[in-house]
Amino acid sequence: MFNKILIANRGEIAVRVIRACREMGIQTVAVYSEVDREALHVQMADEAVCIGPGKAQGSYLNMENIISATVLTGAQAIHPGFGFLSENSKFAQMCEECNITFIGPDGETIENMGNKSKAREMMMEAGVPVIPGTEGSIDTAADALKEADRIGYPVMVKASAGGGGRGIRIVRTKEELKKAFETAKTEAKVAFGDDTMYMEKFIEKPRHIEFQILGDANGNVIHLGERDCSIQRRNQKVLEEAPSPVMTEELRKKMGEVAVKAAKSVNYKSAGTIEFLVDKNFDFYFMEMNTRIQVEHPITEMITGIDLIKEQIKIAAGEALEFSQEDIKLQGHAIECRINAENPKKGFMPSPGTITMEHLPGGSGVRIDSSIYQGYKIPPTYDSMVAKLIVHGKDRADAISKMKRALGEFIVDGIDTNIEFQHKILFNNSFQEGNYDTGFIQSNENTLF
Amino acid sequence: MFNKILIANRGEIAVRVIRACREMGIQTVAVYSEVDREALHVQMADEAVCIGPGKAQGSYLNMENIISATVLTGAQAIHPGFGFLSENSKFAQMCEECNITFIGPDGETIENMGNKSKAREMMMEAGVPVIPGTEGSIDTAADALKEADRIGYPVMVKASAGGGGRGIRIVRTKEELKKAFETAKTEAKVAFGDDTMYMEKFIEKPRHIEFQILGDANGNVIHLGERDCSIQRRNQKVLEEAPSPVMTEELRKKMGEVAVKAAKSVNYKSAGTIEFLVDKNFDFYFMEMNTRIQVEHPITEMITGIDLIKEQIKIAAGEALEFSQEDIKLQGHAIECRINAENPKKGFMPSPGTITMEHLPGGSGVRIDSSIYQGYKIPPTYDSMVAKLIVHGKDRADAISKMKRALGEFIVDGIDTNIEFQHKILFNNSFQEGNYDTGFIQSNENTLF
Repeated sequence: MFNKILIANRGEIAVRVIRACREMGIQTVAVYSEVDREALHVQMADEAVCIGPGKAQGSYLNMENIISATVLTGAQAIHPGFGFLSENSKFAQMCEECNITFIGPDGETIENMGNKSKAREMMMEAGVPVIPGTEGSIDTAADALKEADRIGYPVMVKASAGGGGRGIRIVRTKEELKKAFETAKTEAKVAFGDDTMYMEKFIEKPRHIEFQILGDANGNVIHLGERDCSIQRRNQKVLEEAPSPVMTEELRKKMGEVAVKAAKSVNYKSAGTIEFLVDKNFDFYFMEMNTRIQVEHPITEMITGIDLIKEQIKIAAGEALEFSQEDIKLQGHAIECRINAENPKKGFMPSPGTITMEHLPGGSGVRIDSSIYQGYKIPPTYDSMVAKLIVHGKDRADAISKMKRALGEFIVDGIDTNIEFQHKILFNNSFQEGNYDTGFIQSNENTLF
Repeated sequence: MFNKILIANRGEIAVRVIRACREMGIQTVAVYSEVDREALHVQMADEAVCIGPGKAQGSYLNMENIISATVLTGAQAIHPGFGFLSENSKFAQMCEECNITFIGPDGETIENMGNKSKAREMMMEAGVPVIPGTEGSIDTAADALKEADRIGYPVMVKASAGGGGRGIRIVRTKEELKKAFETAKTEAKVAFGDDTMYMEKFIEKPRHIEFQILGDANGNVIHLGERDCSIQRRNQKVLEEAPSPVMTEELRKKMGEVAVKAAKSVNYKSAGTIEFLVDKNFDFYFMEMNTRIQVEHPITEMITGIDLIKEQIKIAAGEALEFSQEDIKLQGHAIECRINAENPKKGFMPSPGTITMEHLPGGSGVRIDSSIYQGYKIPPTYDSMVAKLIVHGKDRADAISKMKRALGEFIVDGIDTNIEFQHKILFNNSFQEGNYDTGFIQSNENTLF
């Protein structure tokens, strides 16, 4: 096992990884940008190294500086968290070359799954159902028009390198296509430096249901059940729950087997996620594979009792999984609300600033993964998510009652947050009935804001 | 089910009960003394009524004022928490007369179990093993000497109305007995207004192991496994864990059956606890029955998934238990550390005052039941326990690693606390091996302070 791990991230996921390391008796090294000197992960780690200016390009995305910090501190492995370098195959390869263990899958897997059209091809070959769409990339609006006619409207234009809702457009008619294709392509170029585009059939009112995968170096691959992440705003997840309220034992078995098949087809090693779209007939389609830990991983931990970060670390150290598929028992129900420093009433405008007062919920079944504290100044530089509130109940109704109660106790002053917005989701009748799809927030905007 | 419940208590247990009520959709009424205007339970309840001055005699022990507040606010039931009026049979009877449901067993059971010598008699009749001792009370030091000769030294002199370590003396030789008997008697008179005394064989190096009981109005009684509360200072529990590190399936079955038998013999209704002393040969003896919720109830909740406060409320409302003994499965391991405002290095002197900074631990498997917040001024008037830190791990080693990690994150500035003291207990080798008894703190005083 490693003696020391460097965490190439910030915020609550850096704190999360430090906690896992501490419980495993592993020393931790935090890295931080100049604006993050007072950040919680810096205070909690055993050591901390400044790796550059606030702008991520010079710090949290600065591969050379992060590798240097690792060598300097004698850390044997790097945990990349999510975002930043977590799905950067070059970085994974650079780690390998420097004899540092990258805690995640190998660079080739990251590269293949990161390229959305390549991933789609590989999944089709493996017999995993995919959304009808273009084979390979499309270069021009004219090609896009031809392909859309073949697939049938509505269609979705997507950037291969896309993520976080950027480089994506839904197109319902021929007339809209040209402009949508071109703006998405431009957006992709700016955001990812890669404007390779493809196109898919747009699934109406789908649910976003993803399966958590664990694979070790011996080729053992299992799934830990699903998460329903359909509560989204502009393709960004807001609230997640596990199990999915529409899941049946039969469907879980079927989707789980497909998810394991998908992961095995790429010799997947580490924690990963197979994201599916599920339509009204419960037909499901591979959307993408995330080759890293997800923001919403705690809800899977709550219902399985398995610590996913510790598993990632153990797998990276060469240990075999200690459990098989039959050992995985889902217990109760978990919900996660992402707590963002933003103002839902002003178009979810980010709200950085100093937290003048903070009071956290507590009690039975409540877990908080947070990176803030009273007096902390949230910089305007990074993602607005500052904490995650997770509850675990004996069933869905119990989890909902706990989340309502916990959100009601959660006080953050000095900045705007989406706590009240999340509270309104919990009180929504359709949500309470489990009757929602990825359009939930948009179609309830009159009552949620 | 009740629409509104009044909580006749303060501090973290009042917060705990408010949380359970909120999750059940029940309105809550807090009561508070004049020094508790800013207390967390007052801020969290739906309504709050001031019931008198800081001194508990005029407020939290003032039965008339509490009954008046209940009638005034239209609450249908009173949850007494622990301490204060929770084991006061007169109060339970007064509630009944006023048509208010007392959330707990009936007044007669409280009275019988509250009288330690009466409880002992009843348990002997029911065939529950008790510590060899006097039959009935002893009035004079001369009687005490005669009885001690019969029982054999060492003996323990105890006040019938005793609790919290008061009115108790261990006597190892004939010469010490007279003085010990008389000072304990005086102490009992002052503390409880009742100086009835009895005497027991003193068990050397025992473990304190207690069984959680639930009984409903239909006569169903089950146990929820044991808690090991042997880490004590002057008969006050400091750290508790469940299951006990020395428990076997066989012994649990045997002790559990005896605990259920004990509770059934008094027609026990509500949550209750049968406390046993267990000697080195794993012989066990009834010590006392607590007819209320215990401070350490959360560790049982963590390993059983059952919310004990909700069960108390449902039972009081006449509902039958929804599970039987066979349904109770113990999962993983839980530890609770009591966080007290006190200075272990100054003889555990209470340390009231204003909390200038507070940072709570979080993350996987961590639960906090607290009544404090940053800026809160702890009054010098009441018990020094201000929070409970509870962890749940997949096994004992995992729970210990989580508790060490969580204690390390816990920051409270402005007052002294026992956080560092608790941390040292966790790092103690004997503790880590599960090899300890009720003398643990005393015999490790060189390394713990």
